[in-house]
Amino acid sequence: MPVTLADIRAARRRIAGGVIVTPCAESIPLSEAVGAHIFCKLDNFQRTGSFKERGARNALLKLTPAARRRGVVAASAGNHALGLAYHGKLLGIPVTVVMPDYAPLIKITTCQRLGANVMVHGRDFIEARAQADALAAERGYTYIHGFDAPDIIAGQGTMGLEILEQVRDADAVVCPVGGGGLIAGLALAIKSVRPKVRVIGVESTATGNFAAALRAGRPVVRPRRPTLADGLATLTVGANAFAVARRHVDEVVSVTEDDIALAILRMVELEKTVVEGAAATPLAAMMSGRLPKLRGKKVVLVVCGGNIDPAILSRVIEKGLVHDGRLTRFTAVISDRPGGLARLAGVIAASGASIKDITHDRAFSGPDVSAVHAVCTVETRDRNHVRELHRALRRHGFPTV
Amino acid sequence: MPVTLADIRAARRRIAGGVIVTPCAESIPLSEAVGAHIFCKLDNFQRTGSFKERGARNALLKLTPAARRRGVVAASAGNHALGLAYHGKLLGIPVTVVMPDYAPLIKITTCQRLGANVMVHGRDFIEARAQADALAAERGYTYIHGFDAPDIIAGQGTMGLEILEQVRDADAVVCPVGGGGLIAGLALAIKSVRPKVRVIGVESTATGNFAAALRAGRPVVRPRRPTLADGLATLTVGANAFAVARRHVDEVVSVTEDDIALAILRMVELEKTVVEGAAATPLAAMMSGRLPKLRGKKVVLVVCGGNIDPAILSRVIEKGLVHDGRLTRFTAVISDRPGGLARLAGVIAASGASIKDITHDRAFSGPDVSAVHAVCTVETRDRNHVRELHRALRRHGFPTV
Repeated sequence: MPVTLADIRAARRRIAGGVIVTPCAESIPLSEAVGAHIFCKLDNFQRTGSFKERGARNALLKLTPAARRRGVVAASAGNHALGLAYHGKLLGIPVTVVMPDYAPLIKITTCQRLGANVMVHGRDFIEARAQADALAAERGYTYIHGFDAPDIIAGQGTMGLEILEQVRDADAVVCPVGGGGLIAGLALAIKSVRPKVRVIGVESTATGNFAAALRAGRPVVRPRRPTLADGLATLTVGANAFAVARRHVDEVVSVTEDDIALAILRMVELEKTVVEGAAATPLAAMMSGRLPKLRGKKVVLVVCGGNIDPAILSRVIEKGLVHDGRLTRFTAVISDRPGGLARLAGVIAASGASIKDITHDRAFSGPDVSAVHAVCTVETRDRNHVRELHRALRRHGFPTV
Repeated sequence: MPVTLADIRAARRRIAGGVIVTPCAESIPLSEAVGAHIFCKLDNFQRTGSFKERGARNALLKLTPAARRRGVVAASAGNHALGLAYHGKLLGIPVTVVMPDYAPLIKITTCQRLGANVMVHGRDFIEARAQADALAAERGYTYIHGFDAPDIIAGQGTMGLEILEQVRDADAVVCPVGGGGLIAGLALAIKSVRPKVRVIGVESTATGNFAAALRAGRPVVRPRRPTLADGLATLTVGANAFAVARRHVDEVVSVTEDDIALAILRMVELEKTVVEGAAATPLAAMMSGRLPKLRGKKVVLVVCGGNIDPAILSRVIEKGLVHDGRLTRFTAVISDRPGGLARLAGVIAASGASIKDITHDRAFSGPDVSAVHAVCTVETRDRNHVRELHRALRRHGFPTV
């Protein structure tokens, strides 16, 4: 095996003091919401907002003195780049990251602020990786793979050891799966120490590389599809990660993009914490009924990161409010004569809903030139309230279309 | 004095195990952002999302057995109601809360779910309070004031003792001020044990009851104004709270609504935590330059609660993005002939900005009937990028109005 429990224990000693031992307390509101005892391992509280620092620091500390002086390079659009940049700076090791064109601007500027030499290159990860390999060959940098280097996997495994100490009688740990580095280390640590704890992976239906590898018996390269869980959207699982993880992971499930969006909102509302899409997948799996055997059990959710673009968070919250019936939109047909809108607004107000936005559509309102379509966005209490509102509208002569 | 250090120490023993000892770790990203060592005391992680549980549990536990059986009542639109409801249920003490009409529906339903008897009554707090007093007289309930009962103040003071242990060499603690119950207990605890630690209160410019009381030498009743920091919007500071706090608080500053909105976004982005407006005021005071003496010092921010309406959070995030120049809106004058919009969209794309929304305004575009106003909402990188975009638009013949 490329990684052993001894490697993880050594990694833990190596990174101690440099990486935060993040909290893992029970969340009573989440527990009530899903009907199990839910503990959140909050690695979104790491300095750069994700678990990736564990592996990055371990890999950096394992370099020879000569390799340290030359520096390291990696291709990454996200959290691996941030973790390397930060710990490279702390340890005085030069870090170069090659980020593909589509990397979010906020991650590029953050990497630069953390002291990394950032090169934006390539339309996709393959092109960025090729550039990073070229730099490694030319300048003698050590390439550090974000999820398949054994030192990275061992570093990520430290989270498993922490969880075992923090939740001594856990029944299951639910962990997001992208390239497989985190779940490989985590599952190895947990199953080696306490084999009865179930380790469950979660993917987005838009990713699914681990499930595909399980079906094929080996890692397969799959096309990248857009997903809220962008941290999971690797081209494939790593060969080393897969070799370790397939022996130790009990089950892999997948969740939809809608499940993920709603789970992000629930983390905000109930756990008061900000998570990126990948980190919401374990809660999404619990909430969407994918893990019925865990009802009433002690379950640790791996909250792997919090680096979500605020603009996306804002949209996800509004989408979640629509799902809950707390924000709704309908098109009512009103008369174009004076007073039509006033009457409609009166009916909406009387139902207890609050109008956020109204736009009028005259030209495309159909054959009746005295009728106007009013597109209304309103705040409501819940789905029942939405139904009540529609009944009230019909009763007062405002058909909705 | 209505409250002593001994009362706070007794409260701490009394509520131990029933109220979470919340974390208070350094936030490196916030420290870098404000140029001081910033520690966040995260009472938004309490079960019901705020510090109010400390006082509520202490007050409930101090009731006589007979008073416990009869039950308690309080008027509250928010966190005090949630704290009482939750601990009343845990302790088997009947809780009635009278919430004014304007109480957010989510708090009403949460109080009910936590087991309280909820009565929605009164257009304002005074009417709700009168109803609660009437119930207390009729049914023998004990009225528990949300920020002025000495047992409440002593309970809130437990946060001060925790902070002193968690950040042993703190230079200052910055605390939101509404009714004054929290800062009274906190300042009493801190100044009694370690008088050198500065205790600073923060109000919104829309609240300001504590500053007004300091000027008048006694609590004054002031009109309620809308604020993001709704948790601070009491009619007045409490008499007991003021008597304690005025002796121990070093300084009170106030922050604007814009400062608060931006601080909420920064807590989301940098600390990955969800806070309500009141809880963002200490960071707002640091970021807006109101506390220049604290540069480079060890500063604890009291993050008092996380109960923010997700719809408001979503709006605050977008407002913050506009402030940062990451979201911008402008109106460009384009030709109404085919191709006008395509050319405009091309210029925007070439500048690296991403169009989120465009609406056309023909009827109100001025005298030139061949010209149309296109109202564009676009995502940009920062304020410099916004300026670049405007220059590019002018250069390509698209005046903005």
